[in-house]
Amino acid sequence: MTSNPTWTLKRFPTGMPAPEDFSLEDRPAPVAGPGELLVRTLWLSVDPYMRARLSPAKNYAAGQQIGEVMQGGGVGEVVTSNSPLFRPGDIIQADDFGWQPYTTVAADTAMRLDPDAAPVQTSLGCLGMPGLSAYFALLNVGRPKAGETVLISAASGALGQIAGQIARIKGFNPVAIAGSDAKVEWCRSIGYQAGINHRTAGDLTAAIARACPDGVDVFLDNTAGPLHDAALLNLNTFGRIVVVGTVALADRFDQPDIGPRFLRRILVTRARIEGFLLNDFEAHYAEARRDLTAWYQQGLLEAREDVAEGIEAAPQAFIRMLKGENFGKQLVKL
Amino acid sequence: MTSNPTWTLKRFPTGMPAPEDFSLEDRPAPVAGPGELLVRTLWLSVDPYMRARLSPAKNYAAGQQIGEVMQGGGVGEVVTSNSPLFRPGDIIQADDFGWQPYTTVAADTAMRLDPDAAPVQTSLGCLGMPGLSAYFALLNVGRPKAGETVLISAASGALGQIAGQIARIKGFNPVAIAGSDAKVEWCRSIGYQAGINHRTAGDLTAAIARACPDGVDVFLDNTAGPLHDAALLNLNTFGRIVVVGTVALADRFDQPDIGPRFLRRILVTRARIEGFLLNDFEAHYAEARRDLTAWYQQGLLEAREDVAEGIEAAPQAFIRMLKGENFGKQLVKL
Repeated sequence: MTSNPTWTLKRFPTGMPAPEDFSLEDRPAPVAGPGELLVRTLWLSVDPYMRARLSPAKNYAAGQQIGEVMQGGGVGEVVTSNSPLFRPGDIIQADDFGWQPYTTVAADTAMRLDPDAAPVQTSLGCLGMPGLSAYFALLNVGRPKAGETVLISAASGALGQIAGQIARIKGFNPVAIAGSDAKVEWCRSIGYQAGINHRTAGDLTAAIARACPDGVDVFLDNTAGPLHDAALLNLNTFGRIVVVGTVALADRFDQPDIGPRFLRRILVTRARIEGFLLNDFEAHYAEARRDLTAWYQQGLLEAREDVAEGIEAAPQAFIRMLKGENFGKQLVKL
Repeated sequence: MTSNPTWTLKRFPTGMPAPEDFSLEDRPAPVAGPGELLVRTLWLSVDPYMRARLSPAKNYAAGQQIGEVMQGGGVGEVVTSNSPLFRPGDIIQADDFGWQPYTTVAADTAMRLDPDAAPVQTSLGCLGMPGLSAYFALLNVGRPKAGETVLISAASGALGQIAGQIARIKGFNPVAIAGSDAKVEWCRSIGYQAGINHRTAGDLTAAIARACPDGVDVFLDNTAGPLHDAALLNLNTFGRIVVVGTVALADRFDQPDIGPRFLRRILVTRARIEGFLLNDFEAHYAEARRDLTAWYQQGLLEAREDVAEGIEAAPQAFIRMLKGENFGKQLVKL
């Protein structure tokens, strides 16, 4: 029987998750049931939405229970298939991989990948959930017009880096907010027109005003918190804020976020603040994937990855992503 | 020379305006300049937006300066006309009446009223700014669908009462939030399906949940503050909040409003929060006025007024409206 070191949830994190919230157990490799695939994990994805699942509070994603195998997106090779849709050797992507070297996946949730079209792990990044989120949040919710300024927080992250490049491709004016000078510099190299290191900027409202001399028309907010406030204070009349993520709240997840509220400013600017979840756009995934794949193959989309090695590294990779210590799409390579 | 007791701004209010912020001076009646009308004031309107003008802070409406004549909407009879558009005896409405018995109005900002079509003061209420605001905020920004629940704060006020009745006419499900049992009862009588007295309800979130068993699809927010929070916590997926006014903040107008922020809830529900200003819909006023006038003449729109008497009463009428002590559209009759 194959050894299968598996991460389970030991307890619900309070605030920022810690390594002690997870437990590594040597479990036997699972057996594929009817309609399932047994898959050898090649890549695991850690993403901000997973923080919300580690909570007893009601949320949009089904919660993760104590003692359960940690779940997340992954790419792997089919070992055994109980489905006519897949054969051993196929490379697939699915959203419900366990954090383990061998996992089972329901065949009807898996997507076959073509390793010749793009590196398979891009299905977890620029051609997958973060890329699709960037595409729809920017184009379908933010709806910038040509020449408008699009401010993006977590700008070098999995979603931000794609949003910034789509904004460049489409003729908008993307401006980056990121957590280090190196990230800001890289953002400039992929087409962001200006950038702010929020850790050293001092007065964020003034820093955004300098980086966005024509104001902010669309703000893709991956963070919430003080960056949201500072962006709102620079928002143009009829500006739009797309609430894509709240990773700045990861360390106080189950507490209310107390701070200044800006309803008068929203009124005066006739701003629109709108929440975004990718699933709402499922009917248009194929079209977005076509665009993203074409841009990638034409060399228009750079996809920077931050790769942790080995199943042991999964919780730490997740935590550093929540802390913004990753530089690019955070992956775990097995 | 005619006596003309005139209210001027004595100082900028801090928090809730007080009678001492205004000064009554006996000025001579003004003289109409080129293109102007001399008007005998019949009705003055006091409205929440005027609070924002009494501030040195930058705002959407041009500010009122210390020592200047207080300005607001009014209805009056033309005494002298320096414009071919109007004759003495015409009854007009304009947005820039002084708080004084005789005032001058630029002819190109005045609208002639037909006293046979509707009582002339309705041009300050259901057929004027509050009515138009209710119409566009509800139908063009909130955009409810048939059967959806529309929650309205300050529900018996100038704007709220019209919004609730439009919602009833259009087949939505309007629910009132108001500040007394009598107001709630009257709201029910004009077509609101349920009502909440926010001063006695206790837990507002629970009270809204009881009054809106199917959740809230559209919230017309005239108040901000705790009512906004409680409504947001009852908002359905894809719910919409239209920020029409922030009168609950009138007593701490120039301070930040500190409290819980709900970006995660906005994300999870994919809610939309959008600011509203009437002026943006100017191109469609004629169409809205046609609808509102037709409904009024068919007896479908009740227009409740709260009338203070005499020019001396103007500041007090303004203050009681900001405090929510009015019951219906607050007017001053001269």
